[in-house]
Amino acid sequence: MKENYVFTNTTILTLDDTAPVRYNACLVTEDGRISYLGQELPPQLPARHKRIDGRNLLLCPGLVNAHTHTPMTLLRGFSDDCSLEQWLSHIWPAEEALTEDDYYYGSLLGIAEMLAYGTTSVSDMYRSSHTILRSAVDSGIKATICESITCPADQDPALLPSVRRSIDLIHTYNGWDRGRIRCDTSIQSVFQTTPALWEFIGDVAAREHIGIHTHICETRKEVQNCIQNYGCTPIAALQRAGVFRSRVAAAHGIYVSEEDLEILSSSRAVVVHDPCSNLKCGCGIANLKPFIQRGIPVALGTDGVCSNNSGDMFETMKFTALIQKGIHEDPTFADAGQVLSMAVQGGLLSQGREGESGILAPGRDADIIALDLSHPGLSPLTSPVSNLVYAAHGNHVAMTMVRGNILYYKGEYMTIDLEKVKYEVKKCMERLLL
Amino acid sequence: MKENYVFTNTTILTLDDTAPVRYNACLVTEDGRISYLGQELPPQLPARHKRIDGRNLLLCPGLVNAHTHTPMTLLRGFSDDCSLEQWLSHIWPAEEALTEDDYYYGSLLGIAEMLAYGTTSVSDMYRSSHTILRSAVDSGIKATICESITCPADQDPALLPSVRRSIDLIHTYNGWDRGRIRCDTSIQSVFQTTPALWEFIGDVAAREHIGIHTHICETRKEVQNCIQNYGCTPIAALQRAGVFRSRVAAAHGIYVSEEDLEILSSSRAVVVHDPCSNLKCGCGIANLKPFIQRGIPVALGTDGVCSNNSGDMFETMKFTALIQKGIHEDPTFADAGQVLSMAVQGGLLSQGREGESGILAPGRDADIIALDLSHPGLSPLTSPVSNLVYAAHGNHVAMTMVRGNILYYKGEYMTIDLEKVKYEVKKCMERLLL
Repeated sequence: MKENYVFTNTTILTLDDTAPVRYNACLVTEDGRISYLGQELPPQLPARHKRIDGRNLLLCPGLVNAHTHTPMTLLRGFSDDCSLEQWLSHIWPAEEALTEDDYYYGSLLGIAEMLAYGTTSVSDMYRSSHTILRSAVDSGIKATICESITCPADQDPALLPSVRRSIDLIHTYNGWDRGRIRCDTSIQSVFQTTPALWEFIGDVAAREHIGIHTHICETRKEVQNCIQNYGCTPIAALQRAGVFRSRVAAAHGIYVSEEDLEILSSSRAVVVHDPCSNLKCGCGIANLKPFIQRGIPVALGTDGVCSNNSGDMFETMKFTALIQKGIHEDPTFADAGQVLSMAVQGGLLSQGREGESGILAPGRDADIIALDLSHPGLSPLTSPVSNLVYAAHGNHVAMTMVRGNILYYKGEYMTIDLEKVKYEVKKCMERLLL
Repeated sequence: MKENYVFTNTTILTLDDTAPVRYNACLVTEDGRISYLGQELPPQLPARHKRIDGRNLLLCPGLVNAHTHTPMTLLRGFSDDCSLEQWLSHIWPAEEALTEDDYYYGSLLGIAEMLAYGTTSVSDMYRSSHTILRSAVDSGIKATICESITCPADQDPALLPSVRRSIDLIHTYNGWDRGRIRCDTSIQSVFQTTPALWEFIGDVAAREHIGIHTHICETRKEVQNCIQNYGCTPIAALQRAGVFRSRVAAAHGIYVSEEDLEILSSSRAVVVHDPCSNLKCGCGIANLKPFIQRGIPVALGTDGVCSNNSGDMFETMKFTALIQKGIHEDPTFADAGQVLSMAVQGGLLSQGREGESGILAPGRDADIIALDLSHPGLSPLTSPVSNLVYAAHGNHVAMTMVRGNILYYKGEYMTIDLEKVKYEVKKCMERLLL
């Protein structure tokens, strides 16, 4: 039987334009949704409800990690401070040695970290997507999952094992648990695939009414090679193949041309900005101004924990805001509200979940996080939005609720046996590092 | 009576070249110093000792916040996302309205935050330095404090109230509690002072054998104006005035010339890098490569919480590493070990405390922090240094010890009444925001 919750006397960052911040307010959840929000308790409270004193809490919508490779949590700290070539030479053999059990527990560790840091929905792109999906199912998090599809030259896309896994994933699980789990398809990157594959995937997505997750314009070399091989940029190449008929989650987008911006702005693409990974890998720094100026939505992602080392979307928000101010030498650009909106509404849009949650208002899914305001690092609370984006870390999160279920509360998990997960991950790492 | 501690079965990041990381090791503190470090317990344990099971802990030297304005914690979130002119127009009247009590409690709040985030020593530059010093004394943290000195044109430096407060501070408190509290003098910035003041302060520092804390080359405009007014860069101007005879903590250093680098490298100056503040204020991005190439030491600072919003040195470490990799498009530059060394040894050097602590080894002050390895965000522990710099936040700190005294342990403070502090800060903010 589902628990309902009544938060009293609490600070609420609704992100709803009509009343963005409420103080000393109440919020009620019922059957997984927000049923009430107001200054006083409603006349009728739901059955089977638990009351939570919200005096030291700041409630706000859960964050969306719009681009990651969850099982790479296994490889945190495995290969740092080296060139991309060295990195790949470390990572690829390690990935080859991973078992399905490793993927499962690595994913659960990543989800545990994300839940602790206030992420309520994640977009994952990796191999072994069925296993990752199973970890998302078991944990209670919302997830939009795709199989990472690469395509060696001269292969029929329809016969590729990763394409078949992708289609099977979509047919079996897309929309599972009333949409808690969604499945997209993917093009790993232009340089790891062929024009035949782009067209094939473009058709799959259009036919299945799903999105396409892709890495794009992450390095200069990628763009140069594409122009050399196909006479156009990666974004133009995908557009010609019909990919942008569907929703596209376009991860990175560092090196984009004017024509690319035109394509993106006339499509349903969402650029997923991954500042920590881009900086740490030395790929470059994405300029978000052209996207914002043209109304191209931006979401945020941590990218895999093997290139960022952290699954903390709060950190990603601060990096996003500060980097944009820094490169433009303009402290007014990328303000806290704008960046928070990328991490919430931008992320939902990239997952095809707009309207599901994103604001705290009656009728929306109760995807809610609570920050612990008793911590000195969040005091005083002169501006809740500033505190959230510029002062908070993931570890200030006291509670993470998805669809009305508390999945994380002050270090405890309701759906994940963290000790077992850490034990299995340690065993896996001992094997890999031998 | 002083407590002694015995940590057993723990992971220790000594930062000592001979054995940087030790696993399943023991560390013993006695009378405020580290008395033993090894795999087995020593034959004799100190009297009055407490044993701490270190199985889930990572011990490492405390971090040094080498540039901040602690009482500005009061103004967290007070003025964000606006131009420097707007920022100052908000901040200056607020600062004028602050009472000595406000400074005291604002400082204690800032110190509470820093202790929770693993800072064991702080360099502060602000007005009301006597009050800030009192908060440092009461809290148990190590602090190198100076009065912020500005000088309107045509004033005799010797008669300035801030100069007299600075000299009084130095004479009364420098070296207090066997050096736990040190006092430097300051030149707030070249553009807020006069050549007569630079010479005067240069003489004070040389005579008193103390350091000089200054903001320098933080904005393009500052450098251009200095060249216009004095025919040379700010660093050259201070050098001609004799300032670099003494240890200088040179905060920011974004816009430096070849001649500046020569001056810095032939002096005892330490550049204090403040990436979060520099980015957020849109001042620009300091390039650390020329400093490192010339052997100019670099320390790290959070800067005031009114321009960064956080007193977390872990965050500053990650920003430092990632920004340098990003601007140079070189993932091998500013590696985790190098950045950690800036946050520890670089900071101590900037405070004139080299040799005091900085590595975990017998004879050193027991300035130690412990990270909670049970958190999923720090698992697996493939590389403790990577986890510390790239995966950890301040909130992963479970314990902060200064000179063998535990000042912070899992949310509890031994020397600070945090509830009272937050209450007083709230009262102050209500008054300011009226």
